[in-house]
Amino acid sequence: MRDFDEHNITAAVLDRVANTPDPRLRLIMDGLVRHLHDFVRETEPSFREWEQAIDFLTRTGQMCSSTRQEFILLSDTLGVSMLVDAVNHRLPEGVTETTVLGPFYVENPPELPHGHDVSGGLPGEPVFISGRVSTSDGAAIPGAIVDIWHSDADGFYDVQHAEPMTPSLRARFRTDETGAFHFWSIMPRYYAIPHDGTVGTMLAATARHPYRPAHVHFMISAPGFEKLVTHLFSDDSPYLDSDAVFGVKNSLIRCFTREPPGLAPDGTMLTRPWRRLFHDFALGRQPPAPDAS
Amino acid sequence: MRDFDEHNITAAVLDRVANTPDPRLRLIMDGLVRHLHDFVRETEPSFREWEQAIDFLTRTGQMCSSTRQEFILLSDTLGVSMLVDAVNHRLPEGVTETTVLGPFYVENPPELPHGHDVSGGLPGEPVFISGRVSTSDGAAIPGAIVDIWHSDADGFYDVQHAEPMTPSLRARFRTDETGAFHFWSIMPRYYAIPHDGTVGTMLAATARHPYRPAHVHFMISAPGFEKLVTHLFSDDSPYLDSDAVFGVKNSLIRCFTREPPGLAPDGTMLTRPWRRLFHDFALGRQPPAPDAS
Repeated sequence: MRDFDEHNITAAVLDRVANTPDPRLRLIMDGLVRHLHDFVRETEPSFREWEQAIDFLTRTGQMCSSTRQEFILLSDTLGVSMLVDAVNHRLPEGVTETTVLGPFYVENPPELPHGHDVSGGLPGEPVFISGRVSTSDGAAIPGAIVDIWHSDADGFYDVQHAEPMTPSLRARFRTDETGAFHFWSIMPRYYAIPHDGTVGTMLAATARHPYRPAHVHFMISAPGFEKLVTHLFSDDSPYLDSDAVFGVKNSLIRCFTREPPGLAPDGTMLTRPWRRLFHDFALGRQPPAPDAS
Repeated sequence: MRDFDEHNITAAVLDRVANTPDPRLRLIMDGLVRHLHDFVRETEPSFREWEQAIDFLTRTGQMCSSTRQEFILLSDTLGVSMLVDAVNHRLPEGVTETTVLGPFYVENPPELPHGHDVSGGLPGEPVFISGRVSTSDGAAIPGAIVDIWHSDADGFYDVQHAEPMTPSLRARFRTDETGAFHFWSIMPRYYAIPHDGTVGTMLAATARHPYRPAHVHFMISAPGFEKLVTHLFSDDSPYLDSDAVFGVKNSLIRCFTREPPGLAPDGTMLTRPWRRLFHDFALGRQPPAPDAS
């Protein structure tokens, strides 16, 4: 095969990947080549623009570290993460809706007892967060693992601080025999996604802001159930209608109620106003194992 | 805008990039979002596959250094580089055909006098390379800059050696008043593109070999003419029909003739057999400046 031009090169490349042994990878490579070539044929990038694209992708990879994932940010800000989420979660009625994982999850957060204050003494408005994990028909799921993480009162996650620090505003809880969990924290704030890298350049060049509305992340898993990756958004936050990563769903917007000083549900006596969030999470059952992937 | 699903998220993202001030970037972002989302909708990647894609792109960026450009290799091996080349070179009759730049060009190679041996004493079969740079109707272009680079007899470029070394098998010449240039070197060999990185993983997973047929790179520029980026391929090389980067064109396949010991055209006396390559390069005129990019 020689002498490729813009009309025959796609067939030549498709032919070259057609022997991919793994059928799933074969399908993905076939789709990738067709859509990527269609994009190039439609936009006709100049050689300089192609160089700029190579440079953008290279710098995006080189921004990544153990605490920064610029390609996830790129996927998020191009709506790809929410689209992948959508095609994987055509959910049955009654199951909690999903949203993006985001770049700030850290594997194996510290497991803490119910009622623990995960703020580690950081300043902010106290919030009591409680919930119950159940099946879609309301049966409690005891022993479910509930990972939570969120921003501080300035809109930053612990891993964004220059100095290494102990994990804060992130923890793991296990639901009790009634499927319940509860903990104390501080109110998260809306924040700008990291925008000092290539994604920030893209957002600026496309006249977009980098903000996400205030939210708490939840990742909930239990044997036999689909892992739930979601957020709860605060209904008084700005940017609910223009989330930089397209993650807001109406069912995930909750009122973090304002409570006066006094006794909290876990017996804590508060001397100042505090906030309270309650939410029931319903997990979908895993289908009978189709394959191991 | 909230509550995006697989059916409405593309319109939402397109709406978000629709305010891009630069019209060319607006068109590119619009095309990127549509084709990328179509790819995701068609292939329905699992969350695990999405994670693998993020990881692949990240590692590709992190393979890149001042002497290794893994994203160019990826573009080359997916046929994107040749497609970009094609849409930018719908050439008038009589102009030399183009092919990929490749990842091994180094800016500002050493400028050398005609007749210089660029092999720096590396072992290999001597080759005398000469050419003439002209317009498509045959008028000489004096003072054209001719950058050349190629692999050694083992198929490696100077920049691929672990130890920093002086440039070898790369040089810059300027055509004389007749548009001619000539130099000595050693025969290049077919070679595997670097395949110890993510691109190598992709080639292996798709049952493709990493080889390119033997060639010499030329980049020729002169004021008022389109820069020519091309190769000349040796007609006795393997892989002419399965170049890993889809770069072969029939008009660029040349016979590196076999010559007996004796006097070469520049007066050099050869005591062993040598090879000879001659090629005329015709540059296309630049169109009247449309813009500065």
